Parts: sequence; structure tokens; C-alpha cells
Amino acid sequence: MNKQQLIDIIKARKSFLCVGLDTDTKKIPAHLLSEEDPIFAFNKAIIDATADYCVAYKPNLAFYECDGLKGYEAYEKTIAYLKENYPNHFIIADAKRGDIGNTSSMYARSFFEEQDVHALTVAPYMGEDSVKPFLAYEGKWVILLALTSNKGSLDFQLMEDKETGERLFEKVLRRSQEWGNDENMMYVVGATRGQLFEDIRKIVPSHFLLVPGVGAQGGSLSEVCKYGITKECGLIVNSSRAIIYADTTENFAAVAREKAREVQEEMAAELVKYGIL
Amino acid sequence: MNKQQLIDIIKARKSFLCVGLDTDTKKIPAHLLSEEDPIFAFNKAIIDATADYCVAYKPNLAFYECDGLKGYEAYEKTIAYLKENYPNHFIIADAKRGDIGNTSSMYARSFFEEQDVHALTVAPYMGEDSVKPFLAYEGKWVILLALTSNKGSLDFQLMEDKETGERLFEKVLRRSQEWGNDENMMYVVGATRGQLFEDIRKIVPSHFLLVPGVGAQGGSLSEVCKYGITKECGLIVNSSRAIIYADTTENFAAVAREKAREVQEEMAAELVKYGIL
Repeated sequence: MNKQQLIDIIKARKSFLCVGLDTDTKKIPAHLLSEEDPIFAFNKAIIDATADYCVAYKPNLAFYECDGLKGYEAYEKTIAYLKENYPNHFIIADAKRGDIGNTSSMYARSFFEEQDVHALTVAPYMGEDSVKPFLAYEGKWVILLALTSNKGSLDFQLMEDKETGERLFEKVLRRSQEWGNDENMMYVVGATRGQLFEDIRKIVPSHFLLVPGVGAQGGSLSEVCKYGITKECGLIVNSSRAIIYADTTENFAAVAREKAREVQEEMAAELVKYGIL
Repeated sequence: MNKQQLIDIIKARKSFLCVGLDTDTKKIPAHLLSEEDPIFAFNKAIIDATADYCVAYKPNLAFYECDGLKGYEAYEKTIAYLKENYPNHFIIADAKRGDIGNTSSMYARSFFEEQDVHALTVAPYMGEDSVKPFLAYEGKWVILLALTSNKGSLDFQLMEDKETGERLFEKVLRRSQEWGNDENMMYVVGATRGQLFEDIRKIVPSHFLLVPGVGAQGGSLSEVCKYGITKECGLIVNSSRAIIYADTTENFAAVAREKAREVQEEMAAELVKYGIL
């Protein structure tokens, strides 16, 4: 999926919501545990319930890997289900990979050839040759960690460069533009970052940002838009727990749908407010 | 496996070699491709051939994930085979994981409960809460990326802090000691780093370092020892391609054994030279 296609589905669906499929067998409704594949059954129900109101799905690999082979199978079935039934939804594998060049090439083969997802989150610590192999695929996206939403982000990401005064996350943003562009790279910027979005937009004025941290982690959608929205939207805002675990009864899918609809309505209002719709 | 047990097997085997199981179906001997599980068949043969001369095995997850379910199965079988037949070898899952706290907990469950490997490589970019969940397991190890062996390591890891002059990799070393200690943390330091090992040993004088980059990537064992060895050895030096792909005929395992033996001999000499044996 290219940038224009992504913008088109955002406008058509009046939403820039990504639903995070952080599916944990310890948190899904109990009645699903008797299903043959409880994780996939949950995902399928959540996807069918929320697809009208979101533009992207983001399974986090950690939640699948921890169930071993069974989890991996549920993950593959989820991707296949999305690709077959929702070809106009953007699929992000949230795996935060990154290794030396020849090894990143193997990860790229895995995510962009075998699984054929649209985008992969990548960790920047190992630099250029750890990121570039992912950029060799037409129509695929690297979503590079820049300024994350968690407390630990303060440990290293705000470190200032002795010579330039540039902070580490800014260096990641600037340097990585030598490797890719706004047609094949996005950045992870936590919703809890408020005004730092302004600094980020100075360096990447036209890139899409993947924004986690609205909802369970306490970020505010209107703040994120105030500082981060562009004339093409330029934002994909993720919500996981606040939508998928909003209810744990047999009614969970309908409640998830309602939560997604509420977020979509807020998003539509923001899109109108900033002249995108 | 705790630190003393690791030191004991290093002394007993006169080796601090780790064999990297970066098993690529495109590179293994052709005759293995007719086996039911070529990846596992290759790993089993390499392990049986080299076990006398090494103290650790390190499968890199990228090489397994790229074959999907089949690859994941081969990985699990390899770990099970090691645990059953070589309980005195240290098993490192090279996966370079790291995510927000609740997600890192899921990865920890996966590697340290389900798979039950001894150690996992972890990426530091997301800071404390992305690393700490891995440290909650008795007898398990986090191997944190500090200064890697690849060219891209120059992009961010050497950045100097405006206030303290400390470089990013030094900050990672120092800060992470608030989270763990030399009984549950090691660091990845590339063999191509020569004298920087001296700076590293000032910050982590007693931690084990996992050193990739000897062999195919051009690092030298004697240089690594000169600057990095401690009185407890304190080094696990990895070699992947130079051992496992030294030969691609039906004789591959015997040649891999010979290559491992050569490295082990060099290592034994270094251990004697520095008074560890």
C-alpha cells in the first residue's frame, strides 16, 4: 500500500485509527477458550467488529510468540484473514526488529515476502545497515522507533549530542532520511509526547507517524493532532487495550465496535477541524 | 546457568567459543534438503560436531522466522535437542527484542518460560522498562546491545552526551547497571572495536561480554583478548559463518568440527597467556 492509498482510506473512512491486536489468552473472554484457536477467534471477531472504523491493524508479535507454535499459527491466520477479507486495511507487524545487515535481510524476507504485511516496526540502535534491507521492498514500509511512549524512553532517546545539541530521537529522524523517504518510512512517536511533536514535525514535516499511547497509556488525541497532524493527516493513532479489552463478556465484540466508533468520531472531527475532510 | 557455572565450563573446555546457528536453507549442504527438516538436520550435525570445543550456541531468530511455521519448529527442536543432550552448554536466543514493559514481559515469558533458553539479546533503545521484565527470571540472562560490530553502529552508538561527554554505548553500559548486575546481564560488543574494549572495561570490569564479529566480519581474537579479557575470562566470542559454512559438501560437519577445534586451540592459548588456566 502506498502513501496516497493510505491517505485515501483515511479520508474515505474518516479515521486514522489503528487497532492493536495485542491478544493475550489471559485477557480474552473466557468463553473463547473452548474454541479450537482462541487467539484467532478473538482476533477475527475484533476485526469484523471494528473494520468500519479503522484503517490499520497492528498485531504485536510478542503476544503471539509467547504461545509458541500455536501462537505463531494464530498470527499467520490473522494476517491471512486480513489480507483476504480486508485488502484496504494497512497491516503493521509490530516486532521492533533490527540486526546486522545480512540478518535484517532475513527478517525482511520473513515479514515482507512470507507474511506479506505492509509495514514493520524497526529499532534504530544498530544504524543504517540494520534498517536498509527493509527498504528494498516496493510498497512496504519501515516504521522506525523514534520517541516511544514508555517511561524508559527518557533513558536514552532524549540524550543531547555534544556537537550539535540534537537529541538522539532527532538524530534518528534526520539520519534515517538518508536511507528512505516519506513513501517508505514512518516513525513511532508516543502520544504522551505533546509539544515534542512540534520539534519532530520540523524534521519530518510530511512523514506519517505511528502514534501509540492514546488510551491505556494516557495520551490525548486532540493534543496529538494539535501538534502532529499534517495536511495529509500524517498520523496513524493506535489503540490496543482500550478497544480490544473494553469488555470481556460474550458481548466483547459489540463493545469493541462501539469503542472504535467513538474514537473514529473524534478522529472525524479532528480531520474536519484541520481541513483534511 | 549462573556466572560461576559458565566460568567452570569455560575452564573445563578451555574455550569461550559460541557457535552461531544462523542456519539458512540457501547455504546449507544440498544433500540435506531432502531431509524432512533440513534446518534441524543441519543444526544437529553442527552441534554434535562442535560441542566439544564450544561453551555456547546462539541461534539467531531471523534465520528461523523467515521460514515461517516450519522454521519456528526447527528452532524449537534445536533448543530441545540442546537442552536434552548438552545441558552444560549455554543457549543464547539472538533475537534483539525490546518493547514497552507489558510487551517485554510477554517476550520474557516466551524465551525464558516456554523455550527456557539461558539468555536473550535485547535492544536498549526503549530503556529501563523494556529491559527489566527479562531480569525477573532467576538464572536467566539479558545480553544488552552496547557497541555492535556492524558499520551502522557508528550512526548512533558513538554519539557523545552534551553534559557528560559519555557516548551512547557507555550510557547504556552505565545506566543498565541500575537494572541488573554481572550475574544476570551481559553486553554485546563487536570484535571489530579493538581499543574501545578498554573504555568498556572501565565501566563493566566484571561483566561477561558477548563478542560477535570474529571471523567473517574481520575481528581478531587476540585483539579482543588483549583489551577485553578479565581474570574470569569475561568473554564469549561468537563465530557463525566461518564455522558452520566452512564446507558445503557431505563432509561439512567434520570441517566445522575442525574449524571449531582451531578456534578452541587459539582460545586455550589465550586463557593460558592471561593466567586463567
